[in-house]
Amino acid sequence: MITIVAKQTVKQGKIDSFIAIAKKLVEKTHQSDVGCISYDLFQDSQNSGVLSFIEEWENQEALDKHMASRHFRELFPQLDEFLEKPGEINLYQKVE
Amino acid sequence: MITIVAKQTVKQGKIDSFIAIAKKLVEKTHQSDVGCISYDLFQDSQNSGVLSFIEEWENQEALDKHMASRHFRELFPQLDEFLEKPGEINLYQKVE
Repeated sequence: MITIVAKQTVKQGKIDSFIAIAKKLVEKTHQSDVGCISYDLFQDSQNSGVLSFIEEWENQEALDKHMASRHFRELFPQLDEFLEKPGEINLYQKVE
Repeated sequence: MITIVAKQTVKQGKIDSFIAIAKKLVEKTHQSDVGCISYDLFQDSQNSGVLSFIEEWENQEALDKHMASRHFRELFPQLDEFLEKPGEINLYQKVE
């Protein structure tokens, strides 16, 4: 299993716009991406500009298909203009 | 539900020591902390020095009890000496 935390810092005033697109990406991913265990958007309770996708994928193949999917290729780049700085993306393995 | 990502950057050469203590904390938390939905340690696949606790708590009360617990108060501070820089801790709410 692969766990991803994709942490984004969004410009104040652009948070709603970011969330609107991000929610479409979450919905499409839930609908169509095989091997997706979980894929959700989270907002920091103390800093509303910090928004992170926290994702769980069965394997690299499922993740690769997601990143090649039409909805990801179309929607994820649209988030860039709302960002204050480049996102921090970590691909994790659970320590057993 | 509260989701937490506590991202730590560990000094090279201290990773095993960090993991040994962190795993004790995970084990004790699983054993005794009521209201803990999940609490695990993750290692970045591309940077072995990045280790994060990803946690889910039913509510703030459960989280407060965890942070007041003997195992947390004893073990979590022991991790400090292995850190390259202060941890980044985000408390999240899922965006519905």
